[in-house]
Amino acid sequence: MTTNHCPPLSSRHFTIEEVVLDGAIERFVRGGRHLFPRLADALEGIEEIGVLGWGSQGRAQALNLRDALAGTDIRVTVGLRAGSASREDARRCGFIAADGSLGELSDVAGRADLVLFLVSDAAQVELHGEVFARMKRGATLGLSHGFLISHLANAGEGLPAGVNVVGVCPKGMGLSVRRLFEQGTTKDGAGINVSVAVEQDADGRAADVALAWAIGLGAPFVFTTTMEAEFRSDLFGERGVLLGAVHGLAESAYRRLRDQGVGADEAFARSAAAITGPIAQTISRSGIEGLVAAILPAEAASFECAYAATYQPCRRVLEEIYDEVVSGRELAGVIDAGKRLERWPMPPIERTSMWRVGAERRARGLNDGELDPVTVGAFVATMIAQIDVLRERGHSWSEIANESVIEAVDSLLPYMRARGIAYMVDSCSTTARLGARRWGPIFEAAYTREAFAAVDDGAAPPAARSLESHPIHGVLTALRDFRPSVDIAVA
Amino acid sequence: MTTNHCPPLSSRHFTIEEVVLDGAIERFVRGGRHLFPRLADALEGIEEIGVLGWGSQGRAQALNLRDALAGTDIRVTVGLRAGSASREDARRCGFIAADGSLGELSDVAGRADLVLFLVSDAAQVELHGEVFARMKRGATLGLSHGFLISHLANAGEGLPAGVNVVGVCPKGMGLSVRRLFEQGTTKDGAGINVSVAVEQDADGRAADVALAWAIGLGAPFVFTTTMEAEFRSDLFGERGVLLGAVHGLAESAYRRLRDQGVGADEAFARSAAAITGPIAQTISRSGIEGLVAAILPAEAASFECAYAATYQPCRRVLEEIYDEVVSGRELAGVIDAGKRLERWPMPPIERTSMWRVGAERRARGLNDGELDPVTVGAFVATMIAQIDVLRERGHSWSEIANESVIEAVDSLLPYMRARGIAYMVDSCSTTARLGARRWGPIFEAAYTREAFAAVDDGAAPPAARSLESHPIHGVLTALRDFRPSVDIAVA
Repeated sequence: MTTNHCPPLSSRHFTIEEVVLDGAIERFVRGGRHLFPRLADALEGIEEIGVLGWGSQGRAQALNLRDALAGTDIRVTVGLRAGSASREDARRCGFIAADGSLGELSDVAGRADLVLFLVSDAAQVELHGEVFARMKRGATLGLSHGFLISHLANAGEGLPAGVNVVGVCPKGMGLSVRRLFEQGTTKDGAGINVSVAVEQDADGRAADVALAWAIGLGAPFVFTTTMEAEFRSDLFGERGVLLGAVHGLAESAYRRLRDQGVGADEAFARSAAAITGPIAQTISRSGIEGLVAAILPAEAASFECAYAATYQPCRRVLEEIYDEVVSGRELAGVIDAGKRLERWPMPPIERTSMWRVGAERRARGLNDGELDPVTVGAFVATMIAQIDVLRERGHSWSEIANESVIEAVDSLLPYMRARGIAYMVDSCSTTARLGARRWGPIFEAAYTREAFAAVDDGAAPPAARSLESHPIHGVLTALRDFRPSVDIAVA
Repeated sequence: MTTNHCPPLSSRHFTIEEVVLDGAIERFVRGGRHLFPRLADALEGIEEIGVLGWGSQGRAQALNLRDALAGTDIRVTVGLRAGSASREDARRCGFIAADGSLGELSDVAGRADLVLFLVSDAAQVELHGEVFARMKRGATLGLSHGFLISHLANAGEGLPAGVNVVGVCPKGMGLSVRRLFEQGTTKDGAGINVSVAVEQDADGRAADVALAWAIGLGAPFVFTTTMEAEFRSDLFGERGVLLGAVHGLAESAYRRLRDQGVGADEAFARSAAAITGPIAQTISRSGIEGLVAAILPAEAASFECAYAATYQPCRRVLEEIYDEVVSGRELAGVIDAGKRLERWPMPPIERTSMWRVGAERRARGLNDGELDPVTVGAFVATMIAQIDVLRERGHSWSEIANESVIEAVDSLLPYMRARGIAYMVDSCSTTARLGARRWGPIFEAAYTREAFAAVDDGAAPPAARSLESHPIHGVLTALRDFRPSVDIAVA
């Protein structure tokens, strides 16, 4: 059940550093714009980087890499399927057929030396055979999450021989990958952290290619993982506190306050807006311990009670999600769900009165949240439960902190704050959108029927472990040295 | 994807009849107490029926068969594991070690000529190897649902050679199987309908053994199926309108009414109590068309709107459930969930204020529901969507009507009415309890975020098909000839 976290990695071009997190050594590379001049050497032999697909990752990565490699001989091109609806936006961004920077997907796959396969998960299932067949011997296949590797394993298919296969996985959605890169031109350290994995190393250069790709995306902190560990933590995290759980919590906390007679405006400020505002911002700047310290003494008991009442129900749901992911069932279910979408479209998630209240507040410029102690306790318990599941299943602290905390507060929640729940969820991958829709209501029931029911009838159990001594605090402090808190400016 | 419904079956002892349902011929056997004298002949060669397990099915079936076979030479015995907590109740019911009618599970499995393997699903997974190894050559293995057959297929294991394997699957929970048998002593036709399947016929007598067992349970109507079709429809149905969907609907409908300012008492009467009271009772007596006819003209538009707004969201969730079941994922997930129960116990589902309101109403003797047109529309749409999924996937009308309508209104909902949601759900199998907990919240979200959101903003789509011309009405009318509506007297 444990994953082989933090595998060795060596580089001729970048400095691999070590950091001690909760007593364990983890390896990473520090990114930064000062390294862009080294990218061409690290990518020696690569003349064309072909980005297949123009979803939120494809778009962001093509733009970032083109900017990072400006002035070198390396061309960044985009490959799309015939009739792709994205063609017009790619053209507007300067990828055009006339100079060969925009082409047909399989042509680009057959020509590029580094093929970034960033089409949707469903399209990866459909197109991987063609892409593998077209790739040149000695080229590198790049993936931005472990979905395809897991699908091939489930289907009993292998990777193409004679090519490198690497994963470079931004711990944030594509919109943030691009936005923070832009902010990085003036703000040092802005960028999305990235995990890298070498799945197949045909010529001994796979690690350098992966690291150069990651740094070119603007990642301030690049840590090592395996594609298997990445896949598990990624699917798990988005179903958990990143999307599914946070949706369930917002609904349940708002509902509880309304039931207590609190007005709609205030209820929103103390539920959804509490999470996206003061909770996310405080964790971003000073960690979970900083958030706990911000609770007023008079509200400490409410916080403790909500924390204690929430931990176990959420831990149970999270254990279930991890089991579904690791068994392959969640991925197979997503593939079936993708087929059903042709007949039964993706359902809306923002039609209830709660989200209308939020939209009206934003329209009035009222976007502040209040640090409600029950909402804070439930949120922190969910985050800690997710951290504990990942640690027990053998993930590295770098992966845990990014999949459970940093991605939430620095990439996703700012979008929910600016545009609402649907914008955050539906700007993510189809796999994530389906996962949030499946698990969000299960979390909502866990909060409503168990956690808040216990809070309100005074039957919360004692907390399972001391929050103060949790190792995540030291981990987040250490990681803030490599990536400062940056307020993402939602466009 | 289609299942081989309504397979041929022949009998030397019972009359196999045919009924035309929506233009298709289906085969069945009419039960009744007048047939009890024939059971001994049909069970010729069987001296001992060993019931393994004392869950709600084991208890009910052991008691019913002992009563039905009183005066014959056939002994009904009970086999339990060492240390079983059920031993005392079995003793109180007259199964005692002194006369050999209560024994150790594997001893009974090795001795009985008809071995009814009615332990919990998790225990079936654990114990089937031992039971198979102990069974006598020429004996019959009896199952009451398709779980084990599906598990063996998933695990690549086979059935034991040289024995008959039959399924006799009551379309109602164990409590109802016993209670209606008792009521059947004075009320002709009371009893739970049963499906029978012959999975392996070693000596040509399997069908007669299965039919005798079914009739001995008190089944008024015995229809034929396959274990595969039974398994699919059973897991699907309990996750759908039988348990999961009805829980989600009750929560969502209550919540909606409270949000509109309706008082707690009235909101309960128009949601949960509407379903368990007038909706269930009217369908039981006069079918879905009878229920629709009971809607007041002034409320017809509300009913139509709720029906139209609910059908598609529920159909989508139901399609997902069916895919999860047919792929084997739901069963594998239940087995994993069973393992997690040791560490994270089964969560409560009745701690919220809604169910306290219900309990207080019952305590005050206030148990009547009101025929709220929106609740009726949503309930009927869910039931029709379930029926449509099962028909499209190839199930027989007998199976569809029992798994989607008759079991709901005549076996399960009377228990929810008398004792609350948790009593109904948690009197079912662990597989059903886990399934209702997983899918109930997903239905609740579908009602709240989609169906009722559309009702309340006036955006319900036109109904997909005409409810008046649906073939289920004729099917239910035909089946009522074989099993009259009987109000179950909850003990």
